Amino acid sequence: MNELQFGNDGRLRHLITLDGFDCTRIHALLDRADAMRADSRGGAQSLDLLAGRTLINLFFEPSTRTRTSFDLAAKRLGAQVINFDIARSSTVKGESLLDTIHTLEAMHCDAFVVRHQETGTPELVARHLHSAAAVLNAGDGSHAHPTQGLLDALTIRRHCGDFGALRVVICGDIRHSRVARSDVHALRALGVADLRLCAPANLLPAADSSEFPQCRFFHDFDEAIEGCDVAIMLRLQKERMDLAAIPSEAEYFARYGLSRTRLARAKPGCIVMHPGPINRNVEIADDVADGPQSLILDQVANGVFMRMAVLAELLAP
Amino acid sequence: MNELQFGNDGRLRHLITLDGFDCTRIHALLDRADAMRADSRGGAQSLDLLAGRTLINLFFEPSTRTRTSFDLAAKRLGAQVINFDIARSSTVKGESLLDTIHTLEAMHCDAFVVRHQETGTPELVARHLHSAAAVLNAGDGSHAHPTQGLLDALTIRRHCGDFGALRVVICGDIRHSRVARSDVHALRALGVADLRLCAPANLLPAADSSEFPQCRFFHDFDEAIEGCDVAIMLRLQKERMDLAAIPSEAEYFARYGLSRTRLARAKPGCIVMHPGPINRNVEIADDVADGPQSLILDQVANGVFMRMAVLAELLAP
Amino acid sequence: MNELQFGNDGRLRHLITLDGFDCTRIHALLDRADAMRADSRGGAQSLDLLAGRTLINLFFEPSTRTRTSFDLAAKRLGAQVINFDIARSSTVKGESLLDTIHTLEAMHCDAFVVRHQETGTPELVARHLHSAAAVLNAGDGSHAHPTQGLLDALTIRRHCGDFGALRVVICGDIRHSRVARSDVHALRALGVADLRLCAPANLLPAADSSEFPQCRFFHDFDEAIEGCDVAIMLRLQKERMDLAAIPSEAEYFARYGLSRTRLARAKPGCIVMHPGPINRNVEIADDVADGPQSLILDQVANGVFMRMAVLAELLAP
Repeated sequence: MNELQFGNDGRLRHLITLDGFDCTRIHALLDRADAMRADSRGGAQSLDLLAGRTLINLFFEPSTRTRTSFDLAAKRLGAQVINFDIARSSTVKGESLLDTIHTLEAMHCDAFVVRHQETGTPELVARHLHSAAAVLNAGDGSHAHPTQGLLDALTIRRHCGDFGALRVVICGDIRHSRVARSDVHALRALGVADLRLCAPANLLPAADSSEFPQCRFFHDFDEAIEGCDVAIMLRLQKERMDLAAIPSEAEYFARYGLSRTRLARAKPGCIVMHPGPINRNVEIADDVADGPQSLILDQVANGVFMRMAVLAELLAP
Repeated sequence: MNELQFGNDGRLRHLITLDGFDCTRIHALLDRADAMRADSRGGAQSLDLLAGRTLINLFFEPSTRTRTSFDLAAKRLGAQVINFDIARSSTVKGESLLDTIHTLEAMHCDAFVVRHQETGTPELVARHLHSAAAVLNAGDGSHAHPTQGLLDALTIRRHCGDFGALRVVICGDIRHSRVARSDVHALRALGVADLRLCAPANLLPAADSSEFPQCRFFHDFDEAIEGCDVAIMLRLQKERMDLAAIPSEAEYFARYGLSRTRLARAKPGCIVMHPGPINRNVEIADDVADGPQSLILDQVANGVFMRMAVLAELLAP
Repeated sequence: MNELQFGNDGRLRHLITLDGFDCTRIHALLDRADAMRADSRGGAQSLDLLAGRTLINLFFEPSTRTRTSFDLAAKRLGAQVINFDIARSSTVKGESLLDTIHTLEAMHCDAFVVRHQETGTPELVARHLHSAAAVLNAGDGSHAHPTQGLLDALTIRRHCGDFGALRVVICGDIRHSRVARSDVHALRALGVADLRLCAPANLLPAADSSEFPQCRFFHDFDEAIEGCDVAIMLRLQKERMDLAAIPSEAEYFARYGLSRTRLARAKPGCIVMHPGPINRNVEIADDVADGPQSLILDQVANGVFMRMAVLAELLAP
């Protein structure tokens, strides 16, 4: 994949997955996101880095934050954004995805932000482009969500400093989570030594899976969260509760939800994260989601800066 | 509510309802709308007052004119506009409205334009914001539609001058109309002494209602329109005809529609208004809607300037 | 129609159909499109010709390329674009199309791009405007798709030079095709002498039709393509196969599809065009659509420049 993502000069050409990103490259992107925050004075100050560029948002799944975050990030850099309406487009006439992409490319679009329920769609698009356009994976199947991995790393770096000393737990439907995969890629590359994945048995990867190297697997969240600096909670897809052999949301919350009691087992000041949208009182208690240790909204704010940084990296002259 | 809408320095912070606006404040806003018209040379000339600001259109009900009017008003002031697609957003994943708002706030959005079928939603949003963002009510339930009240006042002021001498009738489904409530708030504050509300019995508020102070209630439109300077017609929701015990659109038109014959009972030159979209030949005859006394399209044009004025008041440095 | 499309000074006021455009006028528009390409350095470089102008995209049928092409063309000229969401607008409240148009006009919109399933809708709109706004037909029923006709002419001119010497075949559902009609108008005006229309019997116009003057009709595609310089393939609406008495897509392809074998009957270097979206291996073989003679994506690229040219012609000061 790296041959696809990086040019011969090492420059980022597409962002499909963080698998293969090293520590230096990730820190450089996080630095650029911090610079974006500074340049925009922490807010919505517009920059003109991408004036004359066109970005296409191609979302085949519903999304609040990711789609809007890319939209705002691109516009704040001066780019034009086309939010492509899948439902009312020619895809309803049966045009293939690649024909749609090639059509948009021919109109001189510079970047495609692609979210798709099927793993591999953004890579497929990137491999078949005719032009020098960039592809940004905004989430594909259970495979990867690299800008989420980066913004989570940015959020942790801003609050915890040195990654090497951290103990991080990710709890929820690990098996089907593209967020978990991208977080693990980022955090492993950044040197997190103690990385814990916690889930009901059927929602953990197979014990011999090579997908999560050097991670420790847990079924007991009380045990997994012990002494952690960071707790990343995942959204539970309600249709997955059956698979997990869990009879109710209340039962899920009792065993895998983050309550104040359970959070007290972590290190004092442990930060709490969630990619959103949250299921309140399913995977996270109200008073934790809205409490002083929660960085859920910081993640959202960081997401815009992170995407500005990635867009600038890919598209700025 | 005033403590929510106005800052300690008296400056407008949110626009939820015109209830509590006094004459001076309303005239100042109308003056600002007139200035917007002049600055933009009566048309679409762009101004840059809100460069770098982001406005979110959050419409939970269908809308042509209000949504587009806010969209254009914001863009003509140089702001970015995100039209939030309710149907395809994470609200379909069950995210709560406030979580959606807080997420968008975290992305440094400066204003939320909210239309919702339930009374009180914009106030709810305004009370729970984390940031200094402004909330603009674009219509909530049967409660309020303050920019409509302002643009109607602007339209009347431009054509009739002094409010104190005016006789105004509002005819239609008063009971369920947020437009009627906001018009009454504005026109009462501006000093309209003779303000008449006309509707079938079941579509008038209770006789002892305190919602429409100092208004006179009528069931007979011929009587109500007698000698009026202004006739404001309301849209009839077809599902309300049953409630009004009116068997057909033709019957409604015969009793409450504005025909040329009926308009002749008003003062010569009486202006005719309607918030739109109109049901032709239900509440208003074709030849009246399109006739020389109709200001329906003036209202639309004034709406953009009025919203530019409100946005500038709320957001300009 | 010409009295509607052209002002007294000969200037283009609306673009409804190419019927009535002469050679000089078409070449001037194509020249302007070439200049747009040069000014934008072949790509997405923004120009500011239409700063402060507002364009409304009113699409009542699904569309990928045309809607996005107009959107990009307008934005690259600096205009604001409102993509009017038919499904969620007041048209669902039963507002008439003309009331919607007049409402948008009152908001100082400068151009309406209209696609509608019914022939004559853009003309209807143009005839009822209150303002000096321009109407651009983006496809109405089986009547006309003038920007497609122009971009096809532009594509042919860039590759073939002199129109007088060309032999052109258009193959597919001629009877219901607005693309065929607009292409014929453009190519006839530009002097193409040998213009061939090929279709199954029920998809050709009546033999005595005056719609396609001086064109030759064919039922046999092998015969029709003989010695051609240009082959324009049309999209087959699947529901039309019954009408054509054709039992399957495979059968259609065998008789009317453009395969490499069939293309070999044309002149060497014959260019292959299609308005898109293509039905692969129904009206055109994969290896022809993606082959060296295919200009399908050139058409898309030319479409943006062509629409920039038309918008500039209609709206620039």
